[in-house]
Amino acid sequence: MAPRSELPAHTSCYDHFVSYGETDTMGVLYYAEYLHIFERARSFFIRGHGMSYAEVERRGIILPVREASCRYRAPVRFDDEIHVLTGISEWKRVSIRFAYEVWNKDRTVLHATGMTEHASVGPDGKPVRVPDWLKSLFEAD
Amino acid sequence: MAPRSELPAHTSCYDHFVSYGETDTMGVLYYAEYLHIFERARSFFIRGHGMSYAEVERRGIILPVREASCRYRAPVRFDDEIHVLTGISEWKRVSIRFAYEVWNKDRTVLHATGMTEHASVGPDGKPVRVPDWLKSLFEAD
Amino acid sequence: MAPRSELPAHTSCYDHFVSYGETDTMGVLYYAEYLHIFERARSFFIRGHGMSYAEVERRGIILPVREASCRYRAPVRFDDEIHVLTGISEWKRVSIRFAYEVWNKDRTVLHATGMTEHASVGPDGKPVRVPDWLKSLFEAD
Amino acid sequence: MAPRSELPAHTSCYDHFVSYGETDTMGVLYYAEYLHIFERARSFFIRGHGMSYAEVERRGIILPVREASCRYRAPVRFDDEIHVLTGISEWKRVSIRFAYEVWNKDRTVLHATGMTEHASVGPDGKPVRVPDWLKSLFEAD
Repeated sequence: MAPRSELPAHTSCYDHFVSYGETDTMGVLYYAEYLHIFERARSFFIRGHGMSYAEVERRGIILPVREASCRYRAPVRFDDEIHVLTGISEWKRVSIRFAYEVWNKDRTVLHATGMTEHASVGPDGKPVRVPDWLKSLFEAD
Repeated sequence: MAPRSELPAHTSCYDHFVSYGETDTMGVLYYAEYLHIFERARSFFIRGHGMSYAEVERRGIILPVREASCRYRAPVRFDDEIHVLTGISEWKRVSIRFAYEVWNKDRTVLHATGMTEHASVGPDGKPVRVPDWLKSLFEAD
Repeated sequence: MAPRSELPAHTSCYDHFVSYGETDTMGVLYYAEYLHIFERARSFFIRGHGMSYAEVERRGIILPVREASCRYRAPVRFDDEIHVLTGISEWKRVSIRFAYEVWNKDRTVLHATGMTEHASVGPDGKPVRVPDWLKSLFEAD
Repeated sequence: MAPRSELPAHTSCYDHFVSYGETDTMGVLYYAEYLHIFERARSFFIRGHGMSYAEVERRGIILPVREASCRYRAPVRFDDEIHVLTGISEWKRVSIRFAYEVWNKDRTVLHATGMTEHASVGPDGKPVRVPDWLKSLFEAD
């Protein structure tokens, strides 16, 4: 039986081919590269909701990463096509948490799961409440 | 009062200058780069105990990362010199866990803490007990 | 007047959004990242001709990079969408040369030009003549 | 007979251990990583002359890369220790050129040669003459 996704609703699916430069001597996607790919998947999620992260910043909300983690379950290899499911798993007052699942193209192998927690800060670096427009935007279908 | 390290004994201290290529548009060390630096600090720890990780692999023990996480507390900037304290925080039967602390040069700012958990596997990819020689090696002063 | 492409015919166009992790403290795409993107554009070119580079290797032809260069003309920023035109500019007996042009989305700004020269080697690392099937494949429309 | 260096006088030698994250599926140092290492070697050269590149920027001189190239002669592998010889091969009115040689530890194998050309620009991005203090600094023994 294939693993089931435990992500929230409203996820996006970012499609990615693994490059040579992302792999290592073991012939697999290097562990730090998952965090680069999570960032790409996150930006893709935001663009899919009609806004770029650059535009979010221009509106005065910066979302620096406070914590990140990844659990590596099955290696990914050069030229593999992966699907990165991305959604927001938690809304707090001054932070949000993204969750990620890295699947093979057929959705039969769950390669990795991960999360990133982001503070919501203003241009001065001080915490600010996650604005309603952001929440509305990201929760739209 | 400066923060105190919570690492185990037998830590090593890896010294690193942050390069341009490791920073991002926010002017700070990019979040995925911490995992690259953890790997460098880990190899430095192993070399400090008289063996290279390449030699560990030649002896038939591969230590692939099963989980990694990092908590980002205070940003690091281009050309900052950082000290990465590294030690083994947990020995299990078929895995080990490294812990990391990223400090400024003066040891007054704790920039980040992190961990990586490694399976102990043989050349065929199957789990094997962490060998005694590895434990003795890493626990030596 | 917009700059004109000097690439050969049979080019492909790889579409790329610049991520945070690819930028640096100056707020621009870091110079080494162009070579990563060239690799992605190259793989895209090969896939566009009906084969993956992984399959080329399985057929016994490895194309390691012997030389690479890039001329940086106008910076690219976070979240910019770029078009990377890619083609083969030169066929030699035991090597091939790819040429790249990095354009903005509107094709009004030529951000960078570059090239990579690849040896044609067999599984044993020895030079082999570029096979006809590879040439036919890459020169097809 | 070992190859001879063709670098200018006043070179520095940057010592580097190749990490897993810098290698690729072929088991060798990935071609784009040489440019990262050139940057580290360049910063090391500047620090060796008593100033950091960050300080050069604070004095109003920015040295963005206009062109970079690398010739790959012999692969480097995980955990190899390499010596990167670095010097300035050319001073022009509004630009300087660094040259690099990547050697094995014994200086018997020349793994790669490369160069980077840097514009000299002010904080407004406009070209400025390379200042005398910079030239004096970099040419000191």
